[in-house]
Amino acid sequence: MDDRIKKQMDFILEIDKEKNIFRQTHLSGHGRSENDAEHAWHMAIMAYLLKEYANEKIDISKVMIMCLIHDVVEIDAGDTYAYDEEGLKSQKEREDKAKERIFSLLPEDQKDDLISIFDEFEGNQTMEAKFAHAMDNFQPLLLNNSNDGGDWKQHGVSESQVYKRQRKTKDGSEYLFEITDQILKKHIEKGNLKKDENR
Amino acid sequence: MDDRIKKQMDFILEIDKEKNIFRQTHLSGHGRSENDAEHAWHMAIMAYLLKEYANEKIDISKVMIMCLIHDVVEIDAGDTYAYDEEGLKSQKEREDKAKERIFSLLPEDQKDDLISIFDEFEGNQTMEAKFAHAMDNFQPLLLNNSNDGGDWKQHGVSESQVYKRQRKTKDGSEYLFEITDQILKKHIEKGNLKKDENR
Repeated sequence: MDDRIKKQMDFILEIDKEKNIFRQTHLSGHGRSENDAEHAWHMAIMAYLLKEYANEKIDISKVMIMCLIHDVVEIDAGDTYAYDEEGLKSQKEREDKAKERIFSLLPEDQKDDLISIFDEFEGNQTMEAKFAHAMDNFQPLLLNNSNDGGDWKQHGVSESQVYKRQRKTKDGSEYLFEITDQILKKHIEKGNLKKDENR
Repeated sequence: MDDRIKKQMDFILEIDKEKNIFRQTHLSGHGRSENDAEHAWHMAIMAYLLKEYANEKIDISKVMIMCLIHDVVEIDAGDTYAYDEEGLKSQKEREDKAKERIFSLLPEDQKDDLISIFDEFEGNQTMEAKFAHAMDNFQPLLLNNSNDGGDWKQHGVSESQVYKRQRKTKDGSEYLFEITDQILKKHIEKGNLKKDENR
């Protein structure tokens, strides 16, 4: 077996660990916590199905692989909840180390390719990255919506916290942000999101 | 909210159920059973990384979405183990019903598109379908290999049963079949796969 396929197989086996990185989001039907691999799978299919709503034409192949690998670094760095202010401070450093270690398992050309895709996602400047971020927001939103906003209630998340994050969906898709806005307004009305004047 | 996005959201929520369809394969590190969403995620990334080994040039975007959705029907039909002879007999009928119900949640044009991709996978005639099948074989092989062939031992799977299935990898990738063959020979030697003369 030559070195190239060995390295590829090592990486493939390493990322199996993503299936054990659990997120704050719960599966529909008030299910268990979702893991990173499931979240990425769901996002990639959503990107394919919702691409018509991207603000500009996107390279869907790029968006799919971006969605699929965007959380690989959490194998080492763990999942940082979107509304965990403390965790967010050290997130970049932890994820940079993880990125170097994990992608270095691959042959050099593929390491460079995946790091470039990963960095494009993180940089959030291209239409593909912005649309992938919209999926990263919209996917847990749909699950949480199906569970009566249970994840927000559990963490006492406020209206402004959610909008701060979800508003970025607009950069990828104006239309999906409109839908997001309708969903959020419903949860605010129902009291599932804390109003900011009460903080 | 218009009808189109409502239908898309209904489908997206429906396929969340794939995360609760468990397979016979176990995660690396002698972990728990793997579910369909995780398996599909892993296959799609593998397709991207191993595309250089396809026997002919492939449309990787097509292969990725094919990998991602190829098990959607198991939401209704359940997982049929590759070596379950009885289950395999009724598999097609169960999966056809499921295909119609689940993809019908989508707007008509997307229903047609996903059914066409699903049928292309099942038909296994195009290079994309053959390579996706190679991934469908190679992904659990790598996990099972990392677990000392535990899944084969548990089910008393024989050498000829495994080769009957894994030989099809050759249609997608001669090279990955060579690797498969090396891995299988090692497990036969270790006694993890039953020899056929002992059956």
